[in-house]
Amino acid sequence: MEEEVMHFPAVSRVAVCGGTHGNELSGVYLVRECLKTAKKAEDDGLVSVLAVMSNPRAVQQCRRYTETDLNRCFTQATLNGPVSDRTPYEIIRSQELNSLLGPKGTPRAVDLVCDLHNTTANMGLCLIAYSDSDWISLHIFRYLQRQMSDTPVRYIHFDLPSKEAFSLDSVGKHGFAIEVGPQPHGVMRSNIYTTMKLAVQHILDWVRLFNSGAVFEGDLVEVYSMVKNIDYPRDCETLNITAAIHPKLQDQDFYLLSPSDPMFQTFSGETLRYKGNEPLYPFFINECAYYEKGIALSLARRRCVKIPAIQMQTGIELQDNGSTSVSE
Amino acid sequence: MEEEVMHFPAVSRVAVCGGTHGNELSGVYLVRECLKTAKKAEDDGLVSVLAVMSNPRAVQQCRRYTETDLNRCFTQATLNGPVSDRTPYEIIRSQELNSLLGPKGTPRAVDLVCDLHNTTANMGLCLIAYSDSDWISLHIFRYLQRQMSDTPVRYIHFDLPSKEAFSLDSVGKHGFAIEVGPQPHGVMRSNIYTTMKLAVQHILDWVRLFNSGAVFEGDLVEVYSMVKNIDYPRDCETLNITAAIHPKLQDQDFYLLSPSDPMFQTFSGETLRYKGNEPLYPFFINECAYYEKGIALSLARRRCVKIPAIQMQTGIELQDNGSTSVSE
Repeated sequence: MEEEVMHFPAVSRVAVCGGTHGNELSGVYLVRECLKTAKKAEDDGLVSVLAVMSNPRAVQQCRRYTETDLNRCFTQATLNGPVSDRTPYEIIRSQELNSLLGPKGTPRAVDLVCDLHNTTANMGLCLIAYSDSDWISLHIFRYLQRQMSDTPVRYIHFDLPSKEAFSLDSVGKHGFAIEVGPQPHGVMRSNIYTTMKLAVQHILDWVRLFNSGAVFEGDLVEVYSMVKNIDYPRDCETLNITAAIHPKLQDQDFYLLSPSDPMFQTFSGETLRYKGNEPLYPFFINECAYYEKGIALSLARRRCVKIPAIQMQTGIELQDNGSTSVSE
Repeated sequence: MEEEVMHFPAVSRVAVCGGTHGNELSGVYLVRECLKTAKKAEDDGLVSVLAVMSNPRAVQQCRRYTETDLNRCFTQATLNGPVSDRTPYEIIRSQELNSLLGPKGTPRAVDLVCDLHNTTANMGLCLIAYSDSDWISLHIFRYLQRQMSDTPVRYIHFDLPSKEAFSLDSVGKHGFAIEVGPQPHGVMRSNIYTTMKLAVQHILDWVRLFNSGAVFEGDLVEVYSMVKNIDYPRDCETLNITAAIHPKLQDQDFYLLSPSDPMFQTFSGETLRYKGNEPLYPFFINECAYYEKGIALSLARRRCVKIPAIQMQTGIELQDNGSTSVSE
């Protein structure tokens, strides 16, 4: 029995964004390189690539953000909210980016947004997305896994409706954040930069293959679905943390954490253990930027997802309501 | 032939300072722990320990500094300079700390300042000081090496006269910065915290032994003497860096760098090599805070220093001119 092939429109317009967090430097420098060299190179008739420096003010200051976290500003509510003289820069900027790359949820939006990030966690290369059934994103993920066999490549799924999805990648028809770590914020490590650069090249290669009509076979992939965040133990009065990630958990992202495994070590030396009932997979362990968000680590369930064979649709017409259909 | 023993006054008052850089968290949390528990514990008749949060405003914001780098403000010129309403907070604070722990260069200064720092460089545990003939500091260094045999412990010497010495530790009669890494700024890693905590405990143990009259035998120690800094390659117009530390040099602090060894990798993939004539020892390789200072790495010469046997002087009188002498 032959496998059924699903058809999707071409991925014609791709945005590669960096500096959404101004101190995550791999994406900042990769986008700068693209801006210098990319215009002629990438617009080859198969795909149009737009390189975007998302938060130039934060980049200039080498800080995550200047007033509020840009990558929490892409909900429909914030994108369509009123602005005044006192609106934080990042909210203004999210609306500008929505005009440039979106509007989110409309047919005018770019086909794919790849938003480049770094983490201090030992996460290797991760795609983070809001869907576990976006076959374009999942096929790209599978392609990266095969092409970059020396690098751990994983897919994390945050189960939120598009309207509530808060990050820049949610503005595209398809999209994901690309996290590469570990790297301290404000630092460039050659190995992390090279990994990110390779990933972007492979993604664009995949898009060109897809837009050329290649068939991508169905497969089974592993997806990590976000379950919950866990905060540091804190002093009730000062809210200062009173423990750090336990040395046995530090850097063990995506290694199963079982009930009663060590989780934190207090500053006086005591071990605190994981109190959950279900073994889960930790990620974003000890991410620098999440201290202020009350997240010491996140926990995910690992699942197998069957992805269908896909191929580009041919003979597309854009209908009045913005949906697409095969014309013959 | 018996070794001659040199005698020095007791090390009665020790300052343990953290948060001189507000985002170097091991020292911040270690000082907080000391402030909670130390008063009774450490004042045992053998040594009086003062825990100091050096830059509370920067700590509160989890930034290196608020207006200017506090740890460049302890030259005699800055400590004795005029202040006005527009003087940066850190200059005001350096003068406050000089009143508390100094005045620098006077007999009223505390006997020993240990200033706690972290680095993103893979430097293990380093003492950094302005003298290669301060036998108290060098004996403490030797003691740490012996007590902490699992940790690489090194001594770095910046050859500057005390007047021009710019860091907080120069305010004490003896003093050094303690650098522990690698750790991203703004992050707490249990292993780095534990190393720093152990080091401070061993330093205070050494001081108690010394103040009890123990003789510390002479020895040979290795000292890294600062030779020069090397900046990143930069774009002439934007001053943005155009290369990162080469993957073969990254994390190789204190491994000999020879002429024509790889030093940088440009963002387009080219290798740039070390052009010096002399093999030297790199350190502070890819320290986050030094991008703005134009330092990609520092280079040192390694030397052997003979340290004499030492013992505490007994029967001390403080003379009018502030110098000390044995009374009988």
